[in-house]
Order: sequence, then structure tokens, then C-alpha cells
Amino acid sequence: MHTFNIQAPDEALRPLIQDKIDNLNKPKGSLGRLETLAMQICLAQHTLTPSISHPCHFLLGGDHGIEREGVSVSPREVTWQQMINFTKGGGGVNMFCRQHGFHLRIVDVGVDHDLSQVSGILHHKIAPGTRNFLHEPAMTEDEYNRTFTVGIDLVDAAHSEGSNLLCLGEMGIANTSPSSIWMSLFCDIPLDECIGAGAGLNASGISHKRYILHQALDHFLSTVNCQLSTVNCQLSTAYTIRYFGGFEMVAAVSAMLRAAELGMLILVDGFIMTACALAACRLYPEAQAYMIFGHCGDESGHRRMLDALGAEPLLNLGMRLGEGTGALCAFPIIDSAVRMMNEMNNFDNAQITKYF
Amino acid sequence: MHTFNIQAPDEALRPLIQDKIDNLNKPKGSLGRLETLAMQICLAQHTLTPSISHPCHFLLGGDHGIEREGVSVSPREVTWQQMINFTKGGGGVNMFCRQHGFHLRIVDVGVDHDLSQVSGILHHKIAPGTRNFLHEPAMTEDEYNRTFTVGIDLVDAAHSEGSNLLCLGEMGIANTSPSSIWMSLFCDIPLDECIGAGAGLNASGISHKRYILHQALDHFLSTVNCQLSTVNCQLSTAYTIRYFGGFEMVAAVSAMLRAAELGMLILVDGFIMTACALAACRLYPEAQAYMIFGHCGDESGHRRMLDALGAEPLLNLGMRLGEGTGALCAFPIIDSAVRMMNEMNNFDNAQITKYF
Repeated sequence: MHTFNIQAPDEALRPLIQDKIDNLNKPKGSLGRLETLAMQICLAQHTLTPSISHPCHFLLGGDHGIEREGVSVSPREVTWQQMINFTKGGGGVNMFCRQHGFHLRIVDVGVDHDLSQVSGILHHKIAPGTRNFLHEPAMTEDEYNRTFTVGIDLVDAAHSEGSNLLCLGEMGIANTSPSSIWMSLFCDIPLDECIGAGAGLNASGISHKRYILHQALDHFLSTVNCQLSTVNCQLSTAYTIRYFGGFEMVAAVSAMLRAAELGMLILVDGFIMTACALAACRLYPEAQAYMIFGHCGDESGHRRMLDALGAEPLLNLGMRLGEGTGALCAFPIIDSAVRMMNEMNNFDNAQITKYF
Repeated sequence: MHTFNIQAPDEALRPLIQDKIDNLNKPKGSLGRLETLAMQICLAQHTLTPSISHPCHFLLGGDHGIEREGVSVSPREVTWQQMINFTKGGGGVNMFCRQHGFHLRIVDVGVDHDLSQVSGILHHKIAPGTRNFLHEPAMTEDEYNRTFTVGIDLVDAAHSEGSNLLCLGEMGIANTSPSSIWMSLFCDIPLDECIGAGAGLNASGISHKRYILHQALDHFLSTVNCQLSTVNCQLSTAYTIRYFGGFEMVAAVSAMLRAAELGMLILVDGFIMTACALAACRLYPEAQAYMIFGHCGDESGHRRMLDALGAEPLLNLGMRLGEGTGALCAFPIIDSAVRMMNEMNNFDNAQITKYF
């Protein structure tokens, strides 16, 4: 089992950062959320002059055994079709990466299709889709460990190229299903309240999804012979992650933890990536200091999951595309907060009568 | 009196735009607010392939006679000090203009200080501050008409240089006061509910501001011998605008109307610029089709003014700096919506099984 040594920010820096923010030439507090965001970034980077360099985006792809139960509106082949589409630059994730200068890495962690001849994809396939967690764990312990390694290695490569900000997105038909179960178990919220329409299920589709996920959860609980309240320790958290998680999701969890260990900022997207952030924080609570929640998505339950983390997302644009698109759209706000700390005059050098 | 010929968007284009949006390779509606924004932009530009060119930002400065009554936390000289600060690049508005590629025009429309020797400022001073509307109209009819001309000429210059998007911001100590009165009169909302802390008044400061503004409003109403309900015609709207408005605010109103007449997009900022947008829409309701509301500020009443306009702002970051900073921070969202229409593959050319 991988372990991470994640540093908590040095709180001694907080009053110095606040003093700098309060002396910028503006009414105190008048840049609102930018000011609290700047505080977080400065603490995470342990500096009064934060910076963003070489922002990178991982688009992680994987298929899900649970898709066989008809829990998603889109068929499984959309995963690999979209992966190929991303290599051609025509997806939502592509245009936002171009817009905001992100280096996009498209990674096959477990897509159920041979993509080995497709250029523009990083090949780290663990298996062609996970097992069906209605009946058995989605991945073996060995697969879980190897998936963790994929996320770690990807972050190490980005970090060695100078990146200090990681954004993550996912492509994996049916991946709201494991996300809902993680949310239910990690937040102790009844499963029904964690299940939504995904990419567009109708009422009967949602009803069927609920039926299947309840069966899966009941089976899991009977197998591990435990109650919800007892899974919140690190060992059972890891087991829960691998029992339900997709390869793309588990790689995201380990990528987040490695990024936090390296002091990188982590830009978190919608429902699925927030579920991954939640799982990462249940393993290592100190990782959250490095996470910026970009967007409150439209998927039912996302807001509650953010609340459970005490997270305040930057945007609320009703997006639910996945791929990390909501988080990417929030990037300029982060850039603005960084610029505020570096480019805005203070009252002294601007020669302005200080506001109260 | 200036008149404007503002075209309503061609609604016949709406189903064609919607069809294009719905065939982009994503679950229907999954880009949320970006999709409704793209619709508005396409309608305003009368095209299926929208574009943004040479975005420009007007930072309009002016002082207010009502400042003499102690209605603001900051002293009057902050207006000219900040105007000079903006020419040096150290203000909030500067860094966000740099970040998002806006051509910034800093304009003295009525600052109470001789800025004529300061380079980097466009000199269109009508007078060194407005009159005190506690006792008399803030500007004469001649000043009002000349201020309207300033806004129009500024937009014409930007448009002739190829700009099709105008953002506006203001610098003018005490300008939440006239904004609150405009809001009260144009939205028929009790004045107390339109008055907030401005740049940081405490409770007794707000109480004094209320007392002064009530006096001013009562005097105005007795002078014009009318009730709230009768001011909502174009002539009395214009009178209300000039009775309370600052030079920077009235120039913003005419700039918005001219921009709408030219088919330019108008990016609207916080409380004061929304009050100007409100005034513009009370004169010409068809102007609103061109307005994108960037940010819901922190000033009390801003949300209600947006609601009165039926406007849905893009951001809600608790900013209250003014200068147009909230709107500028929203610009990348507009850029994203435009990119969506131009860069995202549709299902056919992406060869993806269409989602339901």
C-alpha cells in the first residue's frame, strides 16, 4: 500500500499573507473570494508571491463493469470514441485546455478498447474496464496498487516538467455510479440522496440505477460484514475505494495525493472528481489544503458532497459534462488571485489615502 | 436629446442556434450556463459562429456633489488618486485587463482634480464633480447631453478600431448613493432596501447615508411633483438619470446604448454598473439583449436589481471593488461560450454514438 507524506501548510504565514492582502489598494475585503483563494494558494505554496507554472490537465479514461447493468444513458463504447475524439482536439476538454494554456495528457487507465495504436494517448491500461461491483470488487488489490502507481507516475512526470498545478478530468461511461456509492459511504448520506441523472437518465432510468446500486451496496456491506460507521478508517477506506472505483477514478485519487505531497495545487472538477477528492481526503485529510474546488456541477448530490468537505466552489455554471471542463473554466479565477498578490499596488506605493 | 436605434435580435435564428448547440458532442444541456450564454451571443451577433474581437474596457471617473454630505467611507480625493494609480498599471482593473487582453481606456468624465497633464487619461471632463443632489439636480441638461456625447464618442472610437465587446467600470467616491436612488425609482423598491455599505461604511455610517438619501429623494419628488409610479416613462427616466447621476455613470449609460445600437456585447459589472444598465434599459428595453451580467457583487441590493432585470450573472465571488473588476473576471466564461460554438466537434464529425 502506497503512503504519502503530505505537509500541512505553515499557519505562521497566515497573518503575514493577510497583512499583504489588506494593504493592497482596495477597500478591505473588496476582492471577496479572490482574497480567500489567494490566502489558500499562498499557504499551499508557502510564499507571499505565489505563482502558477505549466498547469497540466489529466484526462483519465476507464470503463466500468457496472455499466453492464444499464445504469447509464450512454453506451460503453462512448468512452473509447470520446478518447479518440480528444486526441483530435474536438472535445470540451480540448478547447478549455487550449483557452487556458493547460498541457493536456490523455491517459488510458482502463478503457475497454484497444487504443494502443492511437497516438496522443498515454497507455497505462490496467485492464479493459473494471469488474462488475454488483457481484465482486471492481479491481483486485494488485490492480488497485498498479492504478495508484499510474497516478503517481503521471504527477511525477508533470512535476518534473515544472508544473505546480494539476487539474483532473474523467471519461468513463457509468462513473457517476461508483461516485455515488463513495459519497454515500464516505459522507454517511443515504444512497438515494447521492444518486442523480448522470449524463441524462430519465425517471425510470434513475429508478433502475438506484435499484442496482442498492443491491451492490447491500452485497458489499454483507461481504465486509460492517456498518457504514465503521468504514471510516484508512484501511477500510482503501478497500471501499477499490471495491467500487474505476481505474480512472483511483488514478485520480493517487494523482491528487502525490500532487499534494509535492505541494502542487489541485483543481477539482464536478461530481466524479469531487468524489475522488473526497476519497483522497478520507485517506489523507491534509491533502485538502491543496485542493481548489472549481465548479459546483448540476449532478444531484454534488453540492452536498462539497458541503461535507466544507468546500466552496469558484463557479456555479450548471455544467455536467465531466472531463474536468468545469474546473478548467475556473482557472482564470485562480490566475486572478495570483495576479492580485503580485501585480496590485499597495496603499503606500500607490500614494492613495488609505480606505477604512 | 439623443436617440438610439437598437435592433431586437432576430428570433428566427434561435432554433438554428439551438440545433447547433444540441449537436455538439456532449450530453444535451451539459455545458449549462455556457449554452444559454452562447445562445445570447449568437442572437446578439446574428450568427452561428460568434466571435470576440478587441475587447475594450472603459474606466470612467467622476466625482459626486453628494460626497460632501459624508455618505461614503472614503474621501473624495481617492477618486483622482486612483485615476492616477490606474495610469501606472497598479489597480485592480489594470491587472484584470492585462490578464484578459482588454484595451483599457481611462477616462476623466468629471473628476474633481486637474488631471489634464496626466498622460494615459482621456480628457472629457464635463465639470469637476456633479452638483449636490441633496439640493439640486446633479447636472444641468446641457451637461447631461454633453456627458451622453462622451459615452457615444468613446464607443464609436472603440468600435472603429474593431472592438465588438465593451466592458465598463467606474471610479467615483460616493457613487453607490445615486445608484441606490436609481434602483429605488426604477425598480419601485423602498429606498432603505437599496442602500448598502458601499466601500465599507459601518452601521452608523449607513444610517447617516440613509438619512441623507431619503432627504434627497423626498426633495426630488416634491420638486417634480410626482409619485414613483409616474417616473417610468422615457422623459422622466432621463430626468431621474440626470438629477442623481454622476458624470461617469451617465457616460456609462450612453456608452451602453451606443454599444447596443452597434450590436456590440456589453459586459456589465457590479452594483453601480448594473444601476447604469438598469437606467439604460429603462430608456431602451431592447438594449438588454446585448448585456451580459458578469458578477453579482457583495453590495446590498445588487441581487435584487439583477432580479428586477431578470439577469443571471455569471460569477458570484463576493467582490465589491468596482472599476469593472467583477465583470472582467467573468470574461473567460464568455470566451468559453464562443469557443464552444466554434471549436467543439459535433456528433457526426466526431463519430460518436449520439447521447440521448
